[in-house]
Amino acid sequence: MKSRFDIGYETLTKVDGQAGHNVVNALKDIAPDFANHLIEIFGDIYTRDQLDLRSREIATIASLVTLGHASPQLKVHINAALNVGVSQAEIIMQMSVYAGFPAALNALFITKEVFQEQGYLTTTIA
Amino acid sequence: MKSRFDIGYETLTKVDGQAGHNVVNALKDIAPDFANHLIEIFGDIYTRDQLDLRSREIATIASLVTLGHASPQLKVHINAALNVGVSQAEIIMQMSVYAGFPAALNALFITKEVFQEQGYLTTTIA
Amino acid sequence: MKSRFDIGYETLTKVDGQAGHNVVNALKDIAPDFANHLIEIFGDIYTRDQLDLRSREIATIASLVTLGHASPQLKVHINAALNVGVSQAEIIMQMSVYAGFPAALNALFITKEVFQEQGYLTTTIA
Amino acid sequence: MKSRFDIGYETLTKVDGQAGHNVVNALKDIAPDFANHLIEIFGDIYTRDQLDLRSREIATIASLVTLGHASPQLKVHINAALNVGVSQAEIIMQMSVYAGFPAALNALFITKEVFQEQGYLTTTIA
Amino acid sequence: MKSRFDIGYETLTKVDGQAGHNVVNALKDIAPDFANHLIEIFGDIYTRDQLDLRSREIATIASLVTLGHASPQLKVHINAALNVGVSQAEIIMQMSVYAGFPAALNALFITKEVFQEQGYLTTTIA
Amino acid sequence: MKSRFDIGYETLTKVDGQAGHNVVNALKDIAPDFANHLIEIFGDIYTRDQLDLRSREIATIASLVTLGHASPQLKVHINAALNVGVSQAEIIMQMSVYAGFPAALNALFITKEVFQEQGYLTTTIA
Repeated sequence: MKSRFDIGYETLTKVDGQAGHNVVNALKDIAPDFANHLIEIFGDIYTRDQLDLRSREIATIASLVTLGHASPQLKVHINAALNVGVSQAEIIMQMSVYAGFPAALNALFITKEVFQEQGYLTTTIA
Repeated sequence: MKSRFDIGYETLTKVDGQAGHNVVNALKDIAPDFANHLIEIFGDIYTRDQLDLRSREIATIASLVTLGHASPQLKVHINAALNVGVSQAEIIMQMSVYAGFPAALNALFITKEVFQEQGYLTTTIA
Repeated sequence: MKSRFDIGYETLTKVDGQAGHNVVNALKDIAPDFANHLIEIFGDIYTRDQLDLRSREIATIASLVTLGHASPQLKVHINAALNVGVSQAEIIMQMSVYAGFPAALNALFITKEVFQEQGYLTTTIA
Repeated sequence: MKSRFDIGYETLTKVDGQAGHNVVNALKDIAPDFANHLIEIFGDIYTRDQLDLRSREIATIASLVTLGHASPQLKVHINAALNVGVSQAEIIMQMSVYAGFPAALNALFITKEVFQEQGYLTTTIA
Repeated sequence: MKSRFDIGYETLTKVDGQAGHNVVNALKDIAPDFANHLIEIFGDIYTRDQLDLRSREIATIASLVTLGHASPQLKVHINAALNVGVSQAEIIMQMSVYAGFPAALNALFITKEVFQEQGYLTTTIA
Repeated sequence: MKSRFDIGYETLTKVDGQAGHNVVNALKDIAPDFANHLIEIFGDIYTRDQLDLRSREIATIASLVTLGHASPQLKVHINAALNVGVSQAEIIMQMSVYAGFPAALNALFITKEVFQEQGYLTTTIA
């Protein structure tokens, strides 16, 4: 039987790829227990079958845009959303209604950064 | 050709039913221009076809839970989500990861209120 | 020479009238030092002549709407703004751009309450 | 060996007494898995011995005041702090520096409510 | 008759000068519809004559300081406020009362950056 | 008799060391009155004997993590907490429950930066 950690680790890999693991590795020397706790909770939530992964990514991006202070996490999930076919820019545009234009604008510029890193945009960052 | 207002009014009716109109009507004597502005922007965003209505409701609920101060609007959209088959409690549970447990708990108690009003729960509110 | 407290007390009376004093009195048995501290800081800031009182009320209302969780304070300052000729509903409408529609909507309903209490609106609260 | 749930349940009882259980019970019909998840995570965190319970309550109250939208949770932890000898009003007064006066004021009025319910204040709520 | 876009474009130029257009241009490849939507709404709000432009800038700066996560937008509006004779530092100082000192401090350092870029301060950034 | 400013200055030195003074000095040319105001209020609060300094640092760190937008201030207080024997990482881990994982993660990476600057961690920042 797999442990909560193992399930979480597999789920994190599936959802966030290398980006999620980079975050966890960076925590190892400052708060190793927290890294494990985070992985376990990620697995607890994202493996529940009441909501498909695409819907979960939509909810996560909407929340991270709304928080306003979650740029690094937003970057990870903008990447993750690419794998499940979500239009991130469209979600962010809708967020301007609920969280205001500054939160939406900052999120769009993070999306632009990710798209440029992934080669989807050939222009340089303004 | 329909005006932005007419499109917004139809969209608001489709998404939020009577609840949305109650909000708009309540604004009429204090800020009538704002009521119109809100309806027009609602139509501008929710009629865009890059995202289906179910996905839009997921994003809106996630944002309203995360804001923490949007109980009346959350109540309207918990109702709206009933029409598009979203598991509101599941989205809110996931939000505890990003916005914390207090925001999630308060949102679940609003959901409970809506479900009791709709007859989905037969228990009384604790 | 007047103390910081005396200056603060006079300023609070001038700006917020009875409403400000009600808040301070309600603090007396739970945190009397905090009541004094609040009055002194209110005086420190609101007596500075780099900004007129009307401008200060605009800034305060904008901030309280944006916070989202400051309904009691917003009510006091919606009242205070009546004395300096500010269109509160107009400021709040503008806040929808920066803080989102839920924050603006909730603030407009507080404004409606104040206007009804002051006799400016004859309709009942929806 | 005790389960995470059992440890969490004991810890919740010790920290929050009946108030914590009331919250969990109220979740049972709307989100029973979430109630379990909350209890388990509460146990995971509050049983760690790197920080004593009094320090944990200080941190929790500071966070709940700062959030601004967490009144029900603040009420529970204002009660919990009574058991570990924390001056809640003093923490809240300090929070005015970091989270602003509206958040601090609202928290003090919740403290006043709890103190009146507990019989520490004989005055009625203003 | 001018379109909403044309009115918005003129208003943005008048209020924010080149800074506003830089933001809009940077959105062109990632979310062109959002750039248009933003310009139209900016025009809708800022051309309403119930509030003069100086008052609108005061409200906007107060809101952006309070949000805490809106540094790029704050920078644009600190610049815009220079044109309408607002004492930005004074508004920000007042915001410490409502949004706390961290939000005010961060806003003052952004103001310092703008003032240094504009040649109003000859010292280097600390 | 010492002035409020002198008491505040001594207290700031004791709590935050050079880091606090760097902030105050950086304000001198943009908002000198605000620098004085900040020092005086810091002294007003931190010299009150109802709460020991260690408890005050716990509350401040919890609040700054929760705000999400207070990275520079968090850095100063992560340093200050080193002097009073607080486990910053443990407080931050607990904050994930109330303020969500993004706020906690960002705070842990700031803690890592401080610990590396202080020589407590020999690894480089990831």
